[in-house]
Amino acid sequence: MWLFLPPLLQNPPTAQARSPPAVSAAGDQAESSPRMMENKVFMSFTFYSTILILKMYVVAIITGQVRLRKKAFANPEDALRNGGLQYYREDPDVERCRRAHQNDMENIFPFLFLGAIYSLLDPTPAVARIHFFIFCVGRIIHTIAYLLQLKAPTRSVAYGVAQLPCFSMALQILLATTPYW
Amino acid sequence: MWLFLPPLLQNPPTAQARSPPAVSAAGDQAESSPRMMENKVFMSFTFYSTILILKMYVVAIITGQVRLRKKAFANPEDALRNGGLQYYREDPDVERCRRAHQNDMENIFPFLFLGAIYSLLDPTPAVARIHFFIFCVGRIIHTIAYLLQLKAPTRSVAYGVAQLPCFSMALQILLATTPYW
Amino acid sequence: MWLFLPPLLQNPPTAQARSPPAVSAAGDQAESSPRMMENKVFMSFTFYSTILILKMYVVAIITGQVRLRKKAFANPEDALRNGGLQYYREDPDVERCRRAHQNDMENIFPFLFLGAIYSLLDPTPAVARIHFFIFCVGRIIHTIAYLLQLKAPTRSVAYGVAQLPCFSMALQILLATTPYW
Repeated sequence: MWLFLPPLLQNPPTAQARSPPAVSAAGDQAESSPRMMENKVFMSFTFYSTILILKMYVVAIITGQVRLRKKAFANPEDALRNGGLQYYREDPDVERCRRAHQNDMENIFPFLFLGAIYSLLDPTPAVARIHFFIFCVGRIIHTIAYLLQLKAPTRSVAYGVAQLPCFSMALQILLATTPYW
Repeated sequence: MWLFLPPLLQNPPTAQARSPPAVSAAGDQAESSPRMMENKVFMSFTFYSTILILKMYVVAIITGQVRLRKKAFANPEDALRNGGLQYYREDPDVERCRRAHQNDMENIFPFLFLGAIYSLLDPTPAVARIHFFIFCVGRIIHTIAYLLQLKAPTRSVAYGVAQLPCFSMALQILLATTPYW
Repeated sequence: MWLFLPPLLQNPPTAQARSPPAVSAAGDQAESSPRMMENKVFMSFTFYSTILILKMYVVAIITGQVRLRKKAFANPEDALRNGGLQYYREDPDVERCRRAHQNDMENIFPFLFLGAIYSLLDPTPAVARIHFFIFCVGRIIHTIAYLLQLKAPTRSVAYGVAQLPCFSMALQILLATTPYW
């Protein structure tokens, strides 16, 4: 079962590139301890995750802008500041933005966990990147389809495709960790 | 205070079990660097966390199925594709699924953080597993009680019990990290 | 580019401060493997994160108390247990608590990710702590402003200020990880 539990980092060459003195003695490699930020798969995961978090921030900003444009505020104190209590109301466009944001939370947050753990399982870098890339593109298309109200089932397909790498990662994590339950 | 900050991994036996050659020289243990995925408590935490994330995905899938069965869609474009705009509406059963999912996000996502950090604090493995197990079972019962509409306070009790390990872990983390605020 | 990818822990002074014997031989430092929980920035991040998670739990508890006080329950089974089906209803005060909680999830959960990765990028400890501190204080003020219904734009300003360190951390992460996309 330990086959599933490779070291956090198995590419010592990077360590060499960074600290030339350590290269002199080959035996030093045993000492160069693995660090998470030297794990290229983890770095790739981090890149896509941060892109998706920024995407979520953009949805939040859009929601605020739509609230101002449509004059529909969730709180009386905001409505009062923006024209009066009559603008303390719901609006379909605002609700649409909120649903897009909500769906992001339901799916991107689990990815932040699954992807991080999966990165530590020493997956093939190319395969791992495909996982992250599909999820990232799927979620971006999901948001676009949601906000632009694209014809069904564009949004649902984007959601479904983005879930595939998540299921794949979850199963691989379970395979690796089940002995430790 | 450093007593609270043990190494990421303090069970070199696992390293031995995996790489017999390293056992020959006791001094080699200093070289066997601790890796997160060799931390058995962290592996156990990862197992339970992934189970709970999959559980959340199941709730999402159930929500979609209930939407189709009850013909109640959150978006006009979905309703149009499934019979007409009259199905762009809310439904109590759908809302129930959504509340279950929402409550999961409010509680399982913090657990993903607390449990990961707690695992790094080198807790007693058996005690840690009890934390994870109680949370996991509590949340599964919570979902069942929510979706099957079990009599109150089944759901609230499950929620409360699942919060106990979370509070315990949060307090232990604070104890360990307060010197670094 | 490796300049952006420092080891998980590059402050051996801490190791020295803690284990004076290790200072005697400079070579020992190669053996003292970096561990996440020895990263002071990460510890500081963990402290503030845990405070904010506890803060979210408090909002959840307040929501429950307001539900009981205002007699407004989200589920018929809860209403039945607390006086009758007529209390299966919405209430503006409950909704306010829920919006505060929702906004927390939208912003604190991404921070849990960004802050953890940022901590691993070996930032200047003082600068990092300022990031965490601003976010933490901003979010606490946000919650207070939300629950006490403070005059606009108190809440929005607190939200905006708390987002600044998040954007800063996200950009720094992207700078460090873009080569690995």
